[in-house]
Amino acid sequence: MILTITPNPALDVTYRVARLVPHASHRVDAVHEVAGGKGVNVASVLHARGLPVLATGVVGGPVGEQVVADLDARGIAHDFLVTRGCTRRTMTVVGEREGDATAFNEPGAELTGADWVAFADHVQWLLRRHRPEVVVASGSVPHGFPPDGYAVLVQLAAAAGARVVLDASRDALLGGLPGHPDVVKPNRDELRAVTGVDDPVAGARLLQAKGARHVLVSLGPDGMCLVTPDGEALRAVPGQALRGNPTGAGDAAVAAVASGLAVGAAWPQTLLEAVAWSSAAVLHPLAGHVEATDIDRLRTGVQVQTVEERPCS
Amino acid sequence: MILTITPNPALDVTYRVARLVPHASHRVDAVHEVAGGKGVNVASVLHARGLPVLATGVVGGPVGEQVVADLDARGIAHDFLVTRGCTRRTMTVVGEREGDATAFNEPGAELTGADWVAFADHVQWLLRRHRPEVVVASGSVPHGFPPDGYAVLVQLAAAAGARVVLDASRDALLGGLPGHPDVVKPNRDELRAVTGVDDPVAGARLLQAKGARHVLVSLGPDGMCLVTPDGEALRAVPGQALRGNPTGAGDAAVAAVASGLAVGAAWPQTLLEAVAWSSAAVLHPLAGHVEATDIDRLRTGVQVQTVEERPCS
Repeated sequence: MILTITPNPALDVTYRVARLVPHASHRVDAVHEVAGGKGVNVASVLHARGLPVLATGVVGGPVGEQVVADLDARGIAHDFLVTRGCTRRTMTVVGEREGDATAFNEPGAELTGADWVAFADHVQWLLRRHRPEVVVASGSVPHGFPPDGYAVLVQLAAAAGARVVLDASRDALLGGLPGHPDVVKPNRDELRAVTGVDDPVAGARLLQAKGARHVLVSLGPDGMCLVTPDGEALRAVPGQALRGNPTGAGDAAVAAVASGLAVGAAWPQTLLEAVAWSSAAVLHPLAGHVEATDIDRLRTGVQVQTVEERPCS
Repeated sequence: MILTITPNPALDVTYRVARLVPHASHRVDAVHEVAGGKGVNVASVLHARGLPVLATGVVGGPVGEQVVADLDARGIAHDFLVTRGCTRRTMTVVGEREGDATAFNEPGAELTGADWVAFADHVQWLLRRHRPEVVVASGSVPHGFPPDGYAVLVQLAAAAGARVVLDASRDALLGGLPGHPDVVKPNRDELRAVTGVDDPVAGARLLQAKGARHVLVSLGPDGMCLVTPDGEALRAVPGQALRGNPTGAGDAAVAAVASGLAVGAAWPQTLLEAVAWSSAAVLHPLAGHVEATDIDRLRTGVQVQTVEERPCS
């Protein structure tokens, strides 16, 4: 099975209004609430694909209860550590006009030192109990999360025999690399932010120098670029340009990678699936959702080549 | 004691951001959450004044749990009917610039027919058990609330021997008048909306023709105007103009009226208190809060006269 770790989950709240007007009072026409956070989205995609997955992370307070209640309602197995800090919400106000979205991200509660120790213990207990083949550690981290927190979690998972995928950005990503994650999956902007380098292959190699094994760079509509530990670089390109909601496309790619690692698939096949799953996620209005029929249709158009045949940038 | 009825309470959530920019992503610097709804604010003011009060209404879901948890934390006695529908939130995004507030009001859950029957039963049970001297029915009503819902609640309270204050607007106000509430408290805009008349005294007499006994019209910084059932009209004027947050000033006035009715105070005295309490509420940044020192200071400046001495409009 696959264990997803979300240190900073959220309740994603969406308000639909006619149009957002600053300083005005708005009637909200519809409210949508769903458990979110990148690792939760990965678990959601894996669950939708019928793969055994367990979601963990840190929750607290009434919003935390809503997060786990939503996972229960969707049948997604979970085992979160409950702390006294209150889980954050993200609030998105969507106008009727397409693309008219305004986001408000709550800061979330601070993780205390005791919370962190309890969480590391909790993850270790889950690793011993469930023996996951793959662990996904994903998303932003709460205030108070140690700088090397992701490295510690990666090492705990590796020591328990799991392959580990880390999907984080900025300091959380850099702090996790010394744990030697099997795969890291920055997008192009995240890679540039931590390496200062534009070229995905060159940037990937800089992350490898800091501890990463495989580096999978998602390039949005241009597909993905993988650099393996032995220096091979592969490029996967989708068969068609898609319009839709790119939020959660990266999480679907991570889910595909975790799935490939769990069954020991070859990387070209995993790359193909990653592009197909993330393309299917773009077609779905909600993050963390893919349709099997979309994946089947989109898979056929994906091309996987070496970077010599098709450069990444 | 005083029973406050809030058919449509809310969790009032405030986000502080640097500046609201449509289509942008915002970091929320601070989140503030408080139980709200007009009747809850009235209960909050009465509790702050040390007066025995019980808050009731309809709550449900995780947000409803947050509403009652906040009342518990503030020591405000409550006995809400819990239904399956989820309590609404109001969301206010406040920028750092003064007065920069943008509001989003959730629609709230629909009250089913069975919920309404259960709620009327619940109120009747509270009336029998607590024998309140005064009942305050206040605020907007949920979808599914019967058109004559406030009239029914007013009549139940009157039959139990209570004096009743109704503070509502539009259809909810009009639907409540046939119950013959002892006091209704529209503000000038609400009065105009239901009568089509600008003059507060003339508008008040139209409400009396539809069933209201006393009509207290709040005039914002210009004070208040009372028309009694025997046609006497009184005007109360604050001693000074105040700057601050007018949200909740009407609720503080209603609290003062309820307090006056509970002890059988004469109307000129009650009007004086209503102006002092609502002025004190303007000085407090949070709805439902007044400071005793503010009330004591502001009370001295209030003038109560007949409308012949000082017209209302």
